[in-house]
Amino acid sequence: MGNTIGHLFRVTTFGESHGPAVGCLVDGCPPRIPILAEDIQRALDRRKPGQPLTSARQERDAVRILSGVFENRSLGTPILLVVENTDPRSRDYDSLKDVFRPSHADYTLQMKYGIRDHRGGGRLSGRETVGRVAAGAVAARFLREVYPVQVTAWISAIGDIRMADPAGPVDPDSIYDSPVRCPDAQAAERMVERLDGVSQARDSIGGLVDCRISGVPAGWGEPVFDKLHADLGKAVLSIPGCKGFQIGSGFAAAAMTGSRHNDPFQAAGGRIGTTTNFSGGVQGGISNGEEIRFQVAFKPTPSIRTAQRTVTKEGLPVELEISGRHDPCIAVRAVPVVEAMAWIILADHCLRHRAMAGRLPPAD
Amino acid sequence: MGNTIGHLFRVTTFGESHGPAVGCLVDGCPPRIPILAEDIQRALDRRKPGQPLTSARQERDAVRILSGVFENRSLGTPILLVVENTDPRSRDYDSLKDVFRPSHADYTLQMKYGIRDHRGGGRLSGRETVGRVAAGAVAARFLREVYPVQVTAWISAIGDIRMADPAGPVDPDSIYDSPVRCPDAQAAERMVERLDGVSQARDSIGGLVDCRISGVPAGWGEPVFDKLHADLGKAVLSIPGCKGFQIGSGFAAAAMTGSRHNDPFQAAGGRIGTTTNFSGGVQGGISNGEEIRFQVAFKPTPSIRTAQRTVTKEGLPVELEISGRHDPCIAVRAVPVVEAMAWIILADHCLRHRAMAGRLPPAD
Amino acid sequence: MGNTIGHLFRVTTFGESHGPAVGCLVDGCPPRIPILAEDIQRALDRRKPGQPLTSARQERDAVRILSGVFENRSLGTPILLVVENTDPRSRDYDSLKDVFRPSHADYTLQMKYGIRDHRGGGRLSGRETVGRVAAGAVAARFLREVYPVQVTAWISAIGDIRMADPAGPVDPDSIYDSPVRCPDAQAAERMVERLDGVSQARDSIGGLVDCRISGVPAGWGEPVFDKLHADLGKAVLSIPGCKGFQIGSGFAAAAMTGSRHNDPFQAAGGRIGTTTNFSGGVQGGISNGEEIRFQVAFKPTPSIRTAQRTVTKEGLPVELEISGRHDPCIAVRAVPVVEAMAWIILADHCLRHRAMAGRLPPAD
Amino acid sequence: MGNTIGHLFRVTTFGESHGPAVGCLVDGCPPRIPILAEDIQRALDRRKPGQPLTSARQERDAVRILSGVFENRSLGTPILLVVENTDPRSRDYDSLKDVFRPSHADYTLQMKYGIRDHRGGGRLSGRETVGRVAAGAVAARFLREVYPVQVTAWISAIGDIRMADPAGPVDPDSIYDSPVRCPDAQAAERMVERLDGVSQARDSIGGLVDCRISGVPAGWGEPVFDKLHADLGKAVLSIPGCKGFQIGSGFAAAAMTGSRHNDPFQAAGGRIGTTTNFSGGVQGGISNGEEIRFQVAFKPTPSIRTAQRTVTKEGLPVELEISGRHDPCIAVRAVPVVEAMAWIILADHCLRHRAMAGRLPPAD
Repeated sequence: MGNTIGHLFRVTTFGESHGPAVGCLVDGCPPRIPILAEDIQRALDRRKPGQPLTSARQERDAVRILSGVFENRSLGTPILLVVENTDPRSRDYDSLKDVFRPSHADYTLQMKYGIRDHRGGGRLSGRETVGRVAAGAVAARFLREVYPVQVTAWISAIGDIRMADPAGPVDPDSIYDSPVRCPDAQAAERMVERLDGVSQARDSIGGLVDCRISGVPAGWGEPVFDKLHADLGKAVLSIPGCKGFQIGSGFAAAAMTGSRHNDPFQAAGGRIGTTTNFSGGVQGGISNGEEIRFQVAFKPTPSIRTAQRTVTKEGLPVELEISGRHDPCIAVRAVPVVEAMAWIILADHCLRHRAMAGRLPPAD
Repeated sequence: MGNTIGHLFRVTTFGESHGPAVGCLVDGCPPRIPILAEDIQRALDRRKPGQPLTSARQERDAVRILSGVFENRSLGTPILLVVENTDPRSRDYDSLKDVFRPSHADYTLQMKYGIRDHRGGGRLSGRETVGRVAAGAVAARFLREVYPVQVTAWISAIGDIRMADPAGPVDPDSIYDSPVRCPDAQAAERMVERLDGVSQARDSIGGLVDCRISGVPAGWGEPVFDKLHADLGKAVLSIPGCKGFQIGSGFAAAAMTGSRHNDPFQAAGGRIGTTTNFSGGVQGGISNGEEIRFQVAFKPTPSIRTAQRTVTKEGLPVELEISGRHDPCIAVRAVPVVEAMAWIILADHCLRHRAMAGRLPPAD
Repeated sequence: MGNTIGHLFRVTTFGESHGPAVGCLVDGCPPRIPILAEDIQRALDRRKPGQPLTSARQERDAVRILSGVFENRSLGTPILLVVENTDPRSRDYDSLKDVFRPSHADYTLQMKYGIRDHRGGGRLSGRETVGRVAAGAVAARFLREVYPVQVTAWISAIGDIRMADPAGPVDPDSIYDSPVRCPDAQAAERMVERLDGVSQARDSIGGLVDCRISGVPAGWGEPVFDKLHADLGKAVLSIPGCKGFQIGSGFAAAAMTGSRHNDPFQAAGGRIGTTTNFSGGVQGGISNGEEIRFQVAFKPTPSIRTAQRTVTKEGLPVELEISGRHDPCIAVRAVPVVEAMAWIILADHCLRHRAMAGRLPPAD
Repeated sequence: MGNTIGHLFRVTTFGESHGPAVGCLVDGCPPRIPILAEDIQRALDRRKPGQPLTSARQERDAVRILSGVFENRSLGTPILLVVENTDPRSRDYDSLKDVFRPSHADYTLQMKYGIRDHRGGGRLSGRETVGRVAAGAVAARFLREVYPVQVTAWISAIGDIRMADPAGPVDPDSIYDSPVRCPDAQAAERMVERLDGVSQARDSIGGLVDCRISGVPAGWGEPVFDKLHADLGKAVLSIPGCKGFQIGSGFAAAAMTGSRHNDPFQAAGGRIGTTTNFSGGVQGGISNGEEIRFQVAFKPTPSIRTAQRTVTKEGLPVELEISGRHDPCIAVRAVPVVEAMAWIILADHCLRHRAMAGRLPPAD
């Protein structure tokens, strides 16, 4: 349970890190949308291990479309996307079979299921996000076919190195050209240095991901529980390593007054908008047509190559030194995953809104 | 749509601020749980308007149990809890019929539905939380009947006035004895002063709510999307005015190294635990038996009694001065609502876990 | 659990037969639909006890709309409809507290929940259908506002008295003018006689309900599991006392050849249709634009006034004679309930289809 | 949408008849259940084409387990089962690209989606049931690990040839040893003759499937909408070609009196049971511990090799003669599919019941 997200655009991911395959099943993609393996592959390549500064595991991550697409267009039926695991090096994990790695899910999986695939974190591995990114590519293709939506995420901090808020739109190429997914070249350089230092210290470090969404019309999001930002929040909080989510003003709102925080409405160019955007593009859980803005916090990679104290399944204390291939900063790898989750939630809320907004008596 | 939360312990709230009634329907409460109107009433009294420093609307908020309970015990059938609205003073809102209040949901509701109940925010009013608190009381009663779970939330900041992290457990009475729901008497006093100042300035202010949960056994929470902290995050982000959620180390994790952030395991007293708790009691989305800790940010009340610039439905600019009854800091009112949402999510995950953990082949 | 039906047009019923109230909560009714208490009341009056030949319990069944409607139009928010129980005569049931009535749910409720409201069947009483009929009235109003759909159900058999298949459309008034809900006056007369005989024998009898639906456009229904007829089937099978469901040719199809059973397509008047309708208006689970036809079987009322052998909760044999107010044929009371379930399923599938069929690349 | 069934034991099928693969994803299988490819393969072999008297399409139907299983036991994570299509002979269908086959879903799929995979029925092919049978094998393995449940289905009629009700339990081998899946050797012989005649006439024929379930304890099934027989009904009605479902007395109940139909309770051997079983093992939608009995009607195969009149996509009349490989009686192929659907629904209700029936205050 719990492997599905979305009410109408439904994404289920599957697969263990060192099992035969990972991927996703997308149910609810509308028909006649161009779905090409190349598009999905391009999205997967953005999260692929083997990039500079990230894990050394070499996976081709070649995606296969096994159902739901006919002559390059969606049929309206479930789309199954499968990526076979080809470089698992499972033996690296033999020594971890009965040891609980600190701040991993080894212990909790054991307690929950009484069984676990100890190799590489099993189901709760970063590798699970392959399925998310593949599904995000389908969601993006659908949405962009029918609305001018754009989702852009980037690294805004690694450790104490922060990038200033961008004045205008961020060029996606400037993000993925950077090894740390940071569009500010100067900040990116310092982040690379910081990561080098951390790696040499056999340590890891946390980071922040910023996300901006433009082109969403007013009216998406459902009161009361399925507010647009609540669903976005859940979606990104479910990404491995995520510790926090804030929309618009976020935690800073706690120190602000209402007279400063309220976003005044104005009418300009035939549409009603706001002159500030502390709301982050969402009011009462419903999009207001302004840019949607949120920020996500990621913890440092828990796999570090320094000695740590922990216990075995039997409770015996052991000293653990984790070898193997690990990113020093999972936030960097999470950038395309944050984008994918946003696309999925937006596609779902687009469909939910359409259901209620079709043929009806006239609006007031 | 979107008015239901939970997969097995399912809560639906209903009602408009100035309609005939508000409340909730709880489907999935196990049978034979003592459910008393007094218990639910006590929970409602904690969020009731008319407390010092909060909105002056005088509602008795008397709850009626209309189904699902027989001779003071749950039947396993849907429990309907209804609170009739007795003091709506709807005429206060006549002037707002065609005006969009800044940072309220007036504009987005209009864009979404093409119709709205303009009186007091309609469905997207703080009054909707009556149903949440009533449902939370049912969830709490069920859980406490079968597990020693305790949920405690309090105000940890109003504006720039912050309370230090408590060293040990927090006494619930010390929270609800305080008009600002802050258990630290000295901080509370300064918060009250701050609220007085804000009120006199006809303004409002934001705040933070901290929440701690003890007694949850290891194993609750579902990989992948329905992680325990992701569901908690969604649940509190759906509370009116919430702008951010963080679990354990939260946003501070972004600046930490792995060697500092990892929580070492140790075995003591026959159980495995961690010596630090940056994870916030959840690892891989599954509870690990440690205290669950999260923090929530609330924006300042958008209804302020100073003049604001906005537009009418037709896009004409107007100056708006909101009269009526409003809390200067919605975070204070949100404290029992945060607790209620936590109880609901915990009850749901308890049931989800039970379904999978019944009669089975032996664990490894 | 299990008290909700529908994916987008979601209906939850609540209430015990002798509890404070029964009714429903409808989430997912689109906005701006005229919703009037009178319309719902009219639907309820059709199923109300106290009609000739049906149970003598005298309930006014006055419905109150407690949320989701503003100035007689739906807001797009949850609609709560409550009918208070005013004539329960619960003491009639005191003697049944510890006895399991044959072919009732007394035993299974006890085994499932370990507690039960023994008065009148509790949750599994025919009285639960009040909520279904009220929700059906909302669904009907929405659908008829946007599509020329018509749902008509009637009694086609009581015991061995059968009405011939109608040649053309059936006038709804001719159904509800008949005390046995049978539009064929001659058959109705014989059915009344049959019921009189059964009542005098202190016995009860089964019956069949036929249902026809016109005006559904081609395209509603979801492959694979949520086929339109599968959802209709589940909905009516969930009505108390229902033992069977068949669509189109139904069980007779088992004895037919393909050359006889296949419905040939033809084009006439600018649309494609079929010249026969063994499919019952549904092919592959999707409506084909022809009339939808199904039939439902109901068992005899299990409450009879003759002596029956049964056991107590402790397993002691007892002889039971049920007094109290009971319909001799529940099929008669079920007619408006079958209609209501059809309206609910159609409203749900209408919304599901709209979600997928909005703005899209052109069709082939 | 609509490709998932089950609330806790969730099965999603995927795949088009002539696409790259078919199969299923099972989310909610409890952990530590032995899951072996051989077991699933054995179930698939029972429905495989190429059997005497069924379709001549030669598929090996070799299943691969791509996730959720580690060292032959379930992990509690999603189980992906994939069967690649190896013998599609898609060109047989070129001539059907723009023609609507009578009583197939060609027309309705085109109307619903504006696009379709015309080869072999696409998504709405009998081949979709591969995923159902594979999932059913997982459900069966789980249930049998923890309860002594047994599900047995067989052909009880082909055309007008009917098998008498069996006096005692039916031996599964006697079913699958028969080419027509009928355990009564004499009836089976006549059915084979009937099928031969139908095939020689280039026609097809309908049939009935009976199903018996033993070993289900009292208490499974959820009031109100998710009654056990309502969920069973929906599940089998969703099988391609199904036209009707009846539980226990079924349609015959309509002609019975209550005094005859009621099942008297008795206590024997320490448990309470009924002396007759017109209820079919379910009362009020909840299992009562007796044998569950239902019957399902299937229409004749719509693909016949005689000339039929139909129209093209443009509405032009054409004469159609379907060649290719088709079963003369789909009911025969449906037998293991009916069993699979029953296993899936039972597994789901078992989990639902466990969730509510764990640690609780004592029962009355």
